[in-house]
This record gives sequence, structure tokens and C-alpha cells, in this order.
Amino acid sequence: MNPLIGELQSSAIRDLLSLTRAPGMLSLAGGLPASDVFPVVEIAAVTARLLAEQSATVLQYGPTEGDPRLRDWVARYETRRCGRPVNPGRVLITSGSQQALDLIARTLCSPGDVIVVEEPGYLGALQALRAAGAVLEPVPVDSDGLDVEQLAARLAAGLRPVALYVVTTFGNPTGVTLSRSRRRRLGELAERYGFTVIEDDPYAELGFSAGSNRSNGSAMPTVRTFTDSGVTLGSFSKTVTPGLRVGWAVLPDQLVGPVTRLKQAADLHSGSLGQAIIAELVSDDDWWERHLGVIRQVYATRAEALGAALSERFGDCLALNTPRGGMFLWGRFTDGTMTTQLLADALQEGVAFVPGQEFFSGPPDRSTLRLSYATLTPPSLVEAAGRLATAHARGRCSASSSAR
Amino acid sequence: MNPLIGELQSSAIRDLLSLTRAPGMLSLAGGLPASDVFPVVEIAAVTARLLAEQSATVLQYGPTEGDPRLRDWVARYETRRCGRPVNPGRVLITSGSQQALDLIARTLCSPGDVIVVEEPGYLGALQALRAAGAVLEPVPVDSDGLDVEQLAARLAAGLRPVALYVVTTFGNPTGVTLSRSRRRRLGELAERYGFTVIEDDPYAELGFSAGSNRSNGSAMPTVRTFTDSGVTLGSFSKTVTPGLRVGWAVLPDQLVGPVTRLKQAADLHSGSLGQAIIAELVSDDDWWERHLGVIRQVYATRAEALGAALSERFGDCLALNTPRGGMFLWGRFTDGTMTTQLLADALQEGVAFVPGQEFFSGPPDRSTLRLSYATLTPPSLVEAAGRLATAHARGRCSASSSAR
Repeated sequence: MNPLIGELQSSAIRDLLSLTRAPGMLSLAGGLPASDVFPVVEIAAVTARLLAEQSATVLQYGPTEGDPRLRDWVARYETRRCGRPVNPGRVLITSGSQQALDLIARTLCSPGDVIVVEEPGYLGALQALRAAGAVLEPVPVDSDGLDVEQLAARLAAGLRPVALYVVTTFGNPTGVTLSRSRRRRLGELAERYGFTVIEDDPYAELGFSAGSNRSNGSAMPTVRTFTDSGVTLGSFSKTVTPGLRVGWAVLPDQLVGPVTRLKQAADLHSGSLGQAIIAELVSDDDWWERHLGVIRQVYATRAEALGAALSERFGDCLALNTPRGGMFLWGRFTDGTMTTQLLADALQEGVAFVPGQEFFSGPPDRSTLRLSYATLTPPSLVEAAGRLATAHARGRCSASSSAR
Repeated sequence: MNPLIGELQSSAIRDLLSLTRAPGMLSLAGGLPASDVFPVVEIAAVTARLLAEQSATVLQYGPTEGDPRLRDWVARYETRRCGRPVNPGRVLITSGSQQALDLIARTLCSPGDVIVVEEPGYLGALQALRAAGAVLEPVPVDSDGLDVEQLAARLAAGLRPVALYVVTTFGNPTGVTLSRSRRRRLGELAERYGFTVIEDDPYAELGFSAGSNRSNGSAMPTVRTFTDSGVTLGSFSKTVTPGLRVGWAVLPDQLVGPVTRLKQAADLHSGSLGQAIIAELVSDDDWWERHLGVIRQVYATRAEALGAALSERFGDCLALNTPRGGMFLWGRFTDGTMTTQLLADALQEGVAFVPGQEFFSGPPDRSTLRLSYATLTPPSLVEAAGRLATAHARGRCSASSSAR
């Protein structure tokens, strides 16, 4: 067996998900989008029409590169985001942005090559990068995203990565957005030291207010704006539905051929029907904007409800980020609480979350946790915060008893 | 860039497909199933029901292993085919069997490991195996499939592969089926020399007569019947539709964990809606048998039409296999015709096929060709044979003129 694959770990989050299916469990653990805002009626209508009119295409094998109409849409979208034209020939449609990452990591990386990652960072990416044989080099994240100056210092000291992976907007797990000035600086570093920035941006459209979103969400320039060798990954999983598995990569010219050939070897092409459904939906500009407005409003309300309930219950003993978009709250206990211990008590109280340590590739901060507000209603989020407070109180009680 | 990926070649067949889209072209080149037997009405009805009743599941993220109901169905199907129980826990649903092959090759193979392949063999497999770093060791195919005794001799002489890849039933490109005695012998060799047989069986249900199919098609025991370390790949691409990208792997116990974790890193899971549609369709036993009956009849009629027309036109100068199922005729010119030259003339006459040399990993037989009869009606197949004969006559003319 290939030792790289033999050593892969299952995602602790996906393992945890099975526990969260217990009856009555309120789960803040998943990274699932809200199913109550899936555009089910629209998908049903579009699917019926596609099957009636284009079955010989949407049910047949399709081009490896993806549905031409969807590639055109993505090219227009990404042109708006980086301010210079993106040719549809550089767009590859993939089975979620996870597959794009896997293909790009396999293409760029030979076993032993270094890839820089955020600390903490998206777990699914760490898995894909490790499977490609990458040696991960974590760089810390603060409230403006990846600490680019610390990266610059390490590069100056001799670090030579082939690539850097970053979730740029409303990141997972911390919810932070890489600032505009850091995006520019990161692009400059990539040019200077010759590494590829793999920019994963699935949450860009989930900014909470249309106003602030224009400045901190999808209108923020992509890192690719500042470097010719950048890759941008996108996804319809958080804006339309994840179950169709449709994402994309915008590739630099020199990667288009190799990554497309690898995609062909990996699964020939992504699902034709799913791509056609999404192409049909998003090509209706008015619907698309209305639909994004609904999702933003729902997530903003839920984020506010959970954040307020946690502040009320925990006060200063839990420091929380204040997300401006996306799906996650990130917290850090200031009272010495270890979140893996808290999780055991929390599951007994009927609430689940992900201990922050799962997102670290180096030594973890064990007092952190990730809370997703995406799938629960505000009353359930308030109830979840209450259960978490009960579990926290119980943990502190038993900690003091065992100390006696 | 990873040199393994940088050196990948695009499939000549997929490149050829763009030429075959010219108006009026009759293509025998593709490996596409017939879209006129896609169960469009049934898919539309099932999809509407699933979206109305289970949208929060079929549009949401799903388990990496696949839809539980579909895994159960596959386990029952594969139990019937190998005569001993297959636990659903050993079934992994993949994005077509192509993805299963990619995942398994990456898991089993470290760069430089040897994998035995059929000569000629399925091109898409060769690509996936090369991307995993395999050194390919071709073993010839005859009318009973892979020449297992030649393999035995090479193993006795010291060949030590980690795996062997074979399309066992109505193979691609030759249409031949690995005989029962060779399946047994191959299983014994795998046990003795410790390699994994990767058995790809997407055409098993496409036997032309229900009677002979019972003895040479899906009722033939899988190689896995005879070895504990065998992998069987299957697909709904040829029996339902390829556009949903649903296939599967039955894995030996020791590969379940690593391959599933790699799948998680590669794309999280395959499309939820596509899996649910297929699970719903195939769970209706009566419909499934009726539907397979229709496909078998259509393909049998087309194979007969093309075979007869070619025999009439070419007589002894083209030796053809007589397929008992599947999608392909395989031919060899006995008059010295080189099929890459013939293709240029054929495209001008408005007919396309794949030169056989594309399927060889060692020195090719340049007088061979693969002809797919799956997508054209009998009158069009007769016309295609006529155009091919015209091209052939033209080539011989110009060959004799240039010899003067």
C-alpha cells in the first residue's frame, strides 16, 4: 500500500457527525449549509425542463472541462472579482471545490514538497494536501486572516513552498477574512518566491449585509488579482446546494492542461445533470441576487442569535469572533476550559460542536472551538447555547471535585 | 509540478470526439451508451418525488461511503455474482467506476510499482494507473480474455506486480469475456503471488441473449469469487445513464478504510441526488429487468447490423470479433491497412472510429480498430459501413498510385 494513503486520518468532524444524529441533539458541529434555504422548487422546475428537453445531453457523458455554459458564467463571475478578464478556457468544473483542491495538490506537489497552510485551517484541505504527499507548514491566522508578514519572514529565512492554501473570505474555522492589503502582499510574495496561491473562496457570497459585503465579501479582490500563478477555487455548495457536487477552479494557463488531464483520469467529468441544473439557475441574474439575499439574511440572523446567547451565558470567559459572513463562530475559553473535555459533557446535554484542536496542523490551542449556526433556527440556537453553558458548568464542577 | 502529472497524455479518444461532432458525421468512435434508451421518463418521475419528499437529504452533503440504500443494493447484486455474501460495509459508491479505479490505484501503488494491464486495454484505466505512478506491464488478450498462462509464466520468472487491472466481461476495446477457467486461475495466481486483481465490470449486464447471458454475462462468477484480495468495480453508466456519475467498488476488508479516507479527501462524497435517483430506480426489480431487456435487445440488433454490413463490404480483408454483449466490435485488417491512415480518409467520408493502436501500452498492432455500434440506428450503421468501405478503397487506390 502507498504509505501516504495508509497514513491518512479520517476527518474527526465527519466521525463526529454520526454522533450528532442522535434524537434531540442540537448540532453546532457540522459544516452543512442550511437545507431550509435550498431552492428546492426552482431545482425541481429546472430539472423537469432539462429532462424533457435535453435528456440526451444532461444524462450523457460530458466534457472533462465542464458544461460550457457554466464555465462561461464562472468566467464572468471571476472576471468581476479580480478586475481583469478571465477566459472560460481557464475554468475547470469540479465535483465540489474539494476535488479541485485534490487535483491541484496532486499536480503541483511531489511527495516531500512544502505547502503553507493556515493555522488553524480547513481540515478537509489538510487531508487532500497530505494525500498528495505535501509537508504542511502552518502559519498563524489573526483577525485579518493569514499573518502574511510572518510568512514573509519565513520566506526570507529560506522557506521554499510550492504552494500556499488559504480560505480567503469568512474562513473555516475562524470566520475571518484576509484583508485587502494582505491579499496584495501575498500576491507579491507568490510572484517573488515562485509559489502558487491556492485560494479557496466558497463563502464569499455569504456576507451578512449587502453594504458591508460590497467591501468585505465577494467584492474583495481575489488574491489572483495580484499574481499570475494564483488558483481560485469556488463552489455552489454553500449558495445553491452541496448535494449536486459542483465547484470550480480558475487555473493559470500553465496548469490548465495538466489539471484537466488529471481530472479526466480521476473521474472523466463531473455530473452532467447537476452542472446543467446550476447553469440554468444562476443564469437568471434576478433570481440569483434574490436567492443570495435570502441566504445572507438567514445566516446573519442565526449568527446574531447564537453570538448573543453565548455572550449572555458565558460573558468574558468565552472570547468570540464576530463574523461578518459565512457559517462559523470561533471561540476561545479564557477560563482554562479544554474543549475536548467540554465536548463529552456537551454531547450528554444534547449539543455538539467541534473542538478547535482538530483544525491545527501544529501544536493546537486546546481551549478553542468552532460553532456552526447555519442549520438551526434562532430558538434552537438559544437552547443550544443554554445546553453548552450547562455542560460547561458541570465540567467546572467535576473539575473542582476531582481537584479536591 | 509533479512529473507524473506533467507527463499525462490526454485521451486520444476524447480528443477525437470533438472531430466527430461535425454535421453529418456518423461516429463509431465514442464509448457512449445509447441515449435513446435512457429511462428519461422514469428518472423525471423519481426526481420529482425525491425533491418533493426528501430535499433536505438528496440536496445536502452525504456520507463519504455513499447512499446506504444503494450500497445495500450493490451488496446484494455482488453477492449474487460471486456466490458468497458481500457485506454492504465493503461497498464504496464512487463518481463512476473511473473514480473507483483512480482511488484504488492511488491507494495500492507507490510510484514505480508494477501493475499488469490487458494488451490492448481500456485507455482511461491506463491514464489513471499512470497518474498513480504505476509502471504498466501489458499481457496479451485473446478470444478468452487475458492470457492468464502467459501471466503465470512471467510471474514464475519473477514479475511482482502490486495489482492487475482487467475488464472481465464484454471488454473494452476487444469485446471479449474472460473465461470462467481463467477467472479461477487468475484468482489463484493473485493469492499465490500476493497482488490485487482490480476487476472492472461495467458491461456485465449487456449480454445479448438472456440465455447465453446466463452463461457468459452477469452470471459469470467475478474473479473476486476466487481471491480474498480482489476488487470489483461496477457502474450504472451503461445500464442507467453516465451523466449522473454513479459507480461503485467492492473492496477487500483491508482496503475499506484507506480507500474511503482517500475518497473523503478527493471529493467528500459522490452526488447525493444522483445516487438517490438510481437507488430508487433499481430497487424496482421488475422495472430493472425489463429495462435491461430493452437495452440488450437494442445493442444486439445494432451489433448484428454493423457486423453484417462490415462483413458484406470487407469480406476476408477485415477479421472481426463476434461480440456476445457490450458496446464494441474489434477488427483487424488482413490486407495491410494501417488504421490511422484509414481514419483520415474515413473522416473525409463522414465516418469515425478509433484506431486500435490507442489501446496498446506496448508496441501496437496498427492494423486494428475499435467500432462502437451503441449509439447509431441499424440504417445508419449500414451507411457507416459503406462510408468506411469507400474510405478504405480510396486509401488503397492512393497507396497503389504512390507506389507507382
